[in-house]
Amino acid sequence: MNAPIRIWDSLQRNRNERLARARSQLGADLAGKALPAARIADLLHAVLENGDRVCIEGNNQKQADFLAQALAGLDPQRVHGLHMLQSVLALPEHLDVFERGVASKLDFSFSGPQAGRVAKLAASGKLNIGAIHTYLELFSRYFIDLPPRVALVAAEAADRHGNLYTGPNTEDTPPIVEATAFKNGIVIVQVNRIMDELPRIDVPGDWVDFVVQSPTPYYIEPLFTRDPAQISEIQVLMAMMAIKGIYAEYQVQRLNHGIGFDTAAIELLLPTYGASLGLRGKIATNWALNPHPALIPAIEAGFVESIHSFGSELGMENYIRARPDVFAVGPDGSMRSNRAYCQAAGHYACDMFIGSTLQIDLAGNSSTATLGRISGFGGAPNMGADARGRRHASPAWLKAGEQARHGSGAIPRGQKLVVQMVETFREHMQPAFVEKLDAWELGEQAGMAIPPVMIYGDDVTHILTEEGIANLLLCRSTEEREQAIRGVAGYTPVGLGRDKRMVENLRDRGIITRAEDLGIDKRQATRDLLAAKNMKDLVRASGGLYDPPKRFRNW
Amino acid sequence: MNAPIRIWDSLQRNRNERLARARSQLGADLAGKALPAARIADLLHAVLENGDRVCIEGNNQKQADFLAQALAGLDPQRVHGLHMLQSVLALPEHLDVFERGVASKLDFSFSGPQAGRVAKLAASGKLNIGAIHTYLELFSRYFIDLPPRVALVAAEAADRHGNLYTGPNTEDTPPIVEATAFKNGIVIVQVNRIMDELPRIDVPGDWVDFVVQSPTPYYIEPLFTRDPAQISEIQVLMAMMAIKGIYAEYQVQRLNHGIGFDTAAIELLLPTYGASLGLRGKIATNWALNPHPALIPAIEAGFVESIHSFGSELGMENYIRARPDVFAVGPDGSMRSNRAYCQAAGHYACDMFIGSTLQIDLAGNSSTATLGRISGFGGAPNMGADARGRRHASPAWLKAGEQARHGSGAIPRGQKLVVQMVETFREHMQPAFVEKLDAWELGEQAGMAIPPVMIYGDDVTHILTEEGIANLLLCRSTEEREQAIRGVAGYTPVGLGRDKRMVENLRDRGIITRAEDLGIDKRQATRDLLAAKNMKDLVRASGGLYDPPKRFRNW
Repeated sequence: MNAPIRIWDSLQRNRNERLARARSQLGADLAGKALPAARIADLLHAVLENGDRVCIEGNNQKQADFLAQALAGLDPQRVHGLHMLQSVLALPEHLDVFERGVASKLDFSFSGPQAGRVAKLAASGKLNIGAIHTYLELFSRYFIDLPPRVALVAAEAADRHGNLYTGPNTEDTPPIVEATAFKNGIVIVQVNRIMDELPRIDVPGDWVDFVVQSPTPYYIEPLFTRDPAQISEIQVLMAMMAIKGIYAEYQVQRLNHGIGFDTAAIELLLPTYGASLGLRGKIATNWALNPHPALIPAIEAGFVESIHSFGSELGMENYIRARPDVFAVGPDGSMRSNRAYCQAAGHYACDMFIGSTLQIDLAGNSSTATLGRISGFGGAPNMGADARGRRHASPAWLKAGEQARHGSGAIPRGQKLVVQMVETFREHMQPAFVEKLDAWELGEQAGMAIPPVMIYGDDVTHILTEEGIANLLLCRSTEEREQAIRGVAGYTPVGLGRDKRMVENLRDRGIITRAEDLGIDKRQATRDLLAAKNMKDLVRASGGLYDPPKRFRNW
Repeated sequence: MNAPIRIWDSLQRNRNERLARARSQLGADLAGKALPAARIADLLHAVLENGDRVCIEGNNQKQADFLAQALAGLDPQRVHGLHMLQSVLALPEHLDVFERGVASKLDFSFSGPQAGRVAKLAASGKLNIGAIHTYLELFSRYFIDLPPRVALVAAEAADRHGNLYTGPNTEDTPPIVEATAFKNGIVIVQVNRIMDELPRIDVPGDWVDFVVQSPTPYYIEPLFTRDPAQISEIQVLMAMMAIKGIYAEYQVQRLNHGIGFDTAAIELLLPTYGASLGLRGKIATNWALNPHPALIPAIEAGFVESIHSFGSELGMENYIRARPDVFAVGPDGSMRSNRAYCQAAGHYACDMFIGSTLQIDLAGNSSTATLGRISGFGGAPNMGADARGRRHASPAWLKAGEQARHGSGAIPRGQKLVVQMVETFREHMQPAFVEKLDAWELGEQAGMAIPPVMIYGDDVTHILTEEGIANLLLCRSTEEREQAIRGVAGYTPVGLGRDKRMVENLRDRGIITRAEDLGIDKRQATRDLLAAKNMKDLVRASGGLYDPPKRFRNW
């Protein structure tokens, strides 16, 4: 009996079949790699096969919206059972593919505005969730067990050879295209323009199979823009505590900020309150961060040495171009972002992550998962995890590690600062502190193996509220940890349930710190401390270079 | 008083000055971006400035050796104080730059064969070590606080526009070039050939400033090749225990293997012992791994679904080309490796890392640091750390997490399997188990902030020796952990110091498992189980496609 002959190049053969189908169906309409927008459905029908893993971009900001629409409009009789891979579900079309039966399975990272619909479709059985990932984890799986068969991505421009210019919003494109192209998949790109000569090449044309100029430029969301006019005085107070009680205390130089008004307040206080404490050049010098407009005053004041970005931010193009010492710009003058490398940097090259959450439990576990919404956590789990593979030292990292291990007999080791910054009550008077995370119930409802926690309590080093800072590094037992958390939980039921004597003891030992313990005069905590009080101030601080999107302009 | 005018484009201006100097000095010898090898010293003198951060490639395998020689030969009167950044110090020239005073500071990941000389130069004050990093951590810092001013890299070929073909040994090139090019640095590449048309483009020419054809092809080391003839029967036994006691027990599908005979034995036992246990398709299907020749029999037997690689391996080119379903190959048929993405995948997309070490202490901390050698740890800290940012579940990850947290009341969470596989005595009868790691003394000698630990004990889940497997996940106290380690430490002083009753109790509870507890018949543990017993067998298994480097051929 002969052994069956094993085929070792089935992916290559299959790729060639798909390409042959595309050529035969599009025929003369193909000019090199370029095809007319009107033929996109024909191309997709030609190259897709039922059950394909399809990666669509699907970023935090940049969306391959034209391709998403085309995909959602396909005939489910002809194409179905697709397994979608994407960082972010942002557009209705990202869910329409499931509603219409074109796709049936999903692996993703974040679904923000679509989280309610994800939950509904999952409950109805139309959408089968593989897993929820942090971004870098999802990219990693593209190279190991989830290589895309077809990738649908977006770029600023392409030339006729398929070379891509992704410009400031490169975001997730490079690893998606690399993982697909080098597993004999098919790469299709929507571009805003087809040019004879690109400003620069971000992705080589060899890796790209088809480009199509979309009727309108790709959709992009200014996700990281916060109007300073909406920052409250409580947020100013919390920002003061963060700067004095954490940034200065640990001499934090390399860091990442989450999105939100809490951290925007810190950014706007660096050149005022931070400078008054003599911290210029001593803290917050090197950032893994998108180009937040709220950083403009700190940059102008010389606080910021460098910023490497996951993606860009709408309206910041000219400002970035004029500040190439600070941002990562190419010889052409425009920025290059890269979510994969920036997430790696956020994990391994930063001393601190500070961000917000919706709920924190008594062990410090936090989650933004709420009932009826399956949202994922994007980059937070990666940034908000102790980087246990890290081996280079810095004062901040050593101090955190020393506090965590002091007296334990464990071998010395540094630790990342992971700060959760929340007001004790969020909107509609929902307490931020809870006995049990909603994540438990959501996890059960959605059939998850474990509850969807954003940041685990044992990775959190500080919790900061308007009532004070709880330093969890210094806690020596589960009970101390619980009381430290209760001790900053204000008038929430969790806060009211504190053991007052124990909380006072924790305060005596410096585990809980109040604003007054830091020498902060609460009367100083006014909006006057903000280096910019509204969008117009940001534009002014930028010397007119920042050009906010329309919805942020009221002048 | 007017505020001083802030310069925001000093890096761009400085880059332009460097390029102008190069053009003026090389003049007509520059053909586009290409210059003759004889002019390399002139180019380096023209573009380098004292104190520059210079990144040289410096990989595990591929070496920009021509550029390293040129750099080491520069006049230290004219160029000095360089701050070298490199993944690996492999060549004498990598140290000559310090010996000769051209460079003075070093940030790196691994120094393997040069570790003794690193220690000597550090002690003499000629080499000032910034820090030791795991690879992905070092790349990450290139984007945050250590952007290279000048990068010296190696590629297979370039065209006249500076486009690069890095082929199978892409390794570290992409992030180095990206970090440099987008901070207005200078990128210089040595290539084996300059071609009119490249097989494919791996790095766009826009990112590259100068290419030079080196007189001889770049040096490359077949680092991952192990001759099966040298595998001992003890290693066969340990491999059997690994497969039955860990791989099968946890259903490990996605994994990374360290380098060495221990893990080569496992690779060679998959198609024999592994198949006899019915494990084909159930374990070890998806790999983050270089193309180890020892994997050929497992690939041929259909055990391996996919392999994504950090770098390639000399002699495997034709075999890889003929197995594109397994490896990441481009449309041109040759492999693409990428250390950054593969390290991310090793961290986030794998359920297990298994590797070896030189010393393990009573808490399970391990290190390959020995006195008089400053070697670093390469990728091990990244792979051998629990990926606390990971959020997707798998049976292996859930089971490990459940074992670690069972009964603790902590919120459920998965955990990565991190296995240290050592014989109790290594060569020259040095015990692998010690009361105190040499790393402590080395750290003090070298003025390190903390001892250089490769993998921390609290990240290690299993220790496997010829005496058995210690499952540290199941230990519930520091004492249990210590006795579990002593209980597999054989006749080393640490092993002899065990509390026999406690060790028996741990065995009863399944925390220590002996070969016989796994139903493994030690008499079966012979070299006959190896799917290939020597290099010739590997060639045969590959159908003649594998072409081992000369030093591995004795026929």
